[in-house]
Amino acid sequence: MSGKIAAERPHEFELIKRYFAPLATDAGSLELKDDAAVYTPLEGNELVLTKDMLAADVHFFESDPPEAVAAKALRVNLSDLAAKGATARSYLLGLALPHDWSPSWVERFASGLKGDQSAFDVTLVGGDTIHSGKNLMVSITAIGETRKGAAVRRNGARPGDLLYVTGTIGDAAAGLKERLEPGFAAKYCLSEEETRHILDRYLLPQPRVKIAEVVRRYASAAMDISDGLISDAGHMARASGCQLSFRLEDIPFSSALKTLRLASRDTFLKCLNGGDDYEILVAVPRNVSSAFEAVARKTGCQISAIGEVSAGDASVILSDNGTDISAATIPGFQHF
Amino acid sequence: MSGKIAAERPHEFELIKRYFAPLATDAGSLELKDDAAVYTPLEGNELVLTKDMLAADVHFFESDPPEAVAAKALRVNLSDLAAKGATARSYLLGLALPHDWSPSWVERFASGLKGDQSAFDVTLVGGDTIHSGKNLMVSITAIGETRKGAAVRRNGARPGDLLYVTGTIGDAAAGLKERLEPGFAAKYCLSEEETRHILDRYLLPQPRVKIAEVVRRYASAAMDISDGLISDAGHMARASGCQLSFRLEDIPFSSALKTLRLASRDTFLKCLNGGDDYEILVAVPRNVSSAFEAVARKTGCQISAIGEVSAGDASVILSDNGTDISAATIPGFQHF
Repeated sequence: MSGKIAAERPHEFELIKRYFAPLATDAGSLELKDDAAVYTPLEGNELVLTKDMLAADVHFFESDPPEAVAAKALRVNLSDLAAKGATARSYLLGLALPHDWSPSWVERFASGLKGDQSAFDVTLVGGDTIHSGKNLMVSITAIGETRKGAAVRRNGARPGDLLYVTGTIGDAAAGLKERLEPGFAAKYCLSEEETRHILDRYLLPQPRVKIAEVVRRYASAAMDISDGLISDAGHMARASGCQLSFRLEDIPFSSALKTLRLASRDTFLKCLNGGDDYEILVAVPRNVSSAFEAVARKTGCQISAIGEVSAGDASVILSDNGTDISAATIPGFQHF
Repeated sequence: MSGKIAAERPHEFELIKRYFAPLATDAGSLELKDDAAVYTPLEGNELVLTKDMLAADVHFFESDPPEAVAAKALRVNLSDLAAKGATARSYLLGLALPHDWSPSWVERFASGLKGDQSAFDVTLVGGDTIHSGKNLMVSITAIGETRKGAAVRRNGARPGDLLYVTGTIGDAAAGLKERLEPGFAAKYCLSEEETRHILDRYLLPQPRVKIAEVVRRYASAAMDISDGLISDAGHMARASGCQLSFRLEDIPFSSALKTLRLASRDTFLKCLNGGDDYEILVAVPRNVSSAFEAVARKTGCQISAIGEVSAGDASVILSDNGTDISAATIPGFQHF
């Protein structure tokens, strides 16, 4: 049932050789010419493995630049590894192409991967390229390493820990709204620059790989924010069996989100928990929090103390200058 | 852009908890509750990694039993690992569900995985479940291990080596023909039992995991046959820089393929190189070939000597009782 393709387009093996083999610079990739890849972890290390799939018109727009689709598919996985305190090393690429795929699309897709391989010091070691039958889909399995036992989990938050977040929150969700309803940003008075900012944040996540080592050294628990700050905090609260409280006034927002907040508090709160941030939520024991802050800031990564962990039922509380506004933000979210 | 689903169907997290968490029995899976999995190879081992994607109505039929779809998606990966001489240990599952997915389909899919986990001694350690936007797709990354440096590659075949193949060849390709053109088998006089045999071989590959250790001990090169015996042999010939010659009269065929051969030699030859066999092609140095045969047969695996490796240009020759019939079988194949 392998579909035949027009003669001017390269076959699978030619496509791999032409576009993807140049990305497979690690010897263990066997130049993508074998059934499998060989991978040797550094002595004394454990592996951290993550796999995120992205489908066209579900997780990105089919019309997005191919370079950005490639980068997003890789980066959402790198974000998971960073949140575990792992150093990313390699990835396997599953690429399911639609019927009307073109060599130039694949070439640009591969060039997006190439740029990110340099930026994040990872290499392609294997994968599969198929006809999807229908829409474009990208499935990446990323491989990171930490010292044995050092991977940071979600379930280690303890009462008294402080909660930190990297970067700013809500931008990508606002960017997605602008993509789905063009004019959204203008309606809420965002400047051109602010509009560009939210669109960029949606299109191209910036995984916080620089902070991975700091997370590994200091965090009691960490996770990346993909479903929304409050929703993801709920996962950490349940895994750790603690209550997580956040102060809205301390959560970092971009100029764009501040503008949105003034125009529509309701829409702003939806974006706050809209997801696709790919920032990292970190719980840090209070006695090492100063050291954590100092070392984290040395990496150049923006880091903000936004809440704390307390004993109590596994839940999340969001307050705005002392007023509990959890009900306004938490229930709305439905993932999948 | 995360699609909302009907209220009676479980959300992603509930779906993972209900159907997939019971499959994640390894501690490193973190019960599928974290961003990533933790994996610790045995001391002194290297990893062998493979990733095969399957799309509905490209690699299987959407109407296939969900248990069989799950098993096939896992087994094609296990076949790759066996061909490298690696022992399968774990896998990550990417499942992209169509809009009209049902809990009962996912339950049956998970039960197919469960059965194969017992049969092949592997566990689920991580993955991702998404809306595909369009058709069903399964992307599995499988993880095996060998001692450092022991993985068997495609490029090690040397002049004088003997070529072996496991099982019988061409059945799955004939089974696919019957699926695509019902009545195909009857037209070519296959019995009911023979028809059932080819359909089974297409639906459910039997990865040769039992022979992995024997391959590791004796093979100079090995690969699994997914694209077709002759086409895949071409990959081995090019990787090894040798000529591979096969004797049609020694290639093992089932009763079904023998019947087909009598009815239509042309169709038979197409099935010979039709692919989806998931048997293993093994090159073995002549001086250890008797030992290889003896040990391989002890595993209960059918093994046949079907050709040999010689110096010369990287190519494949197929002869029928001394007559070269390469032209009749090799050019027709187009993958992807």
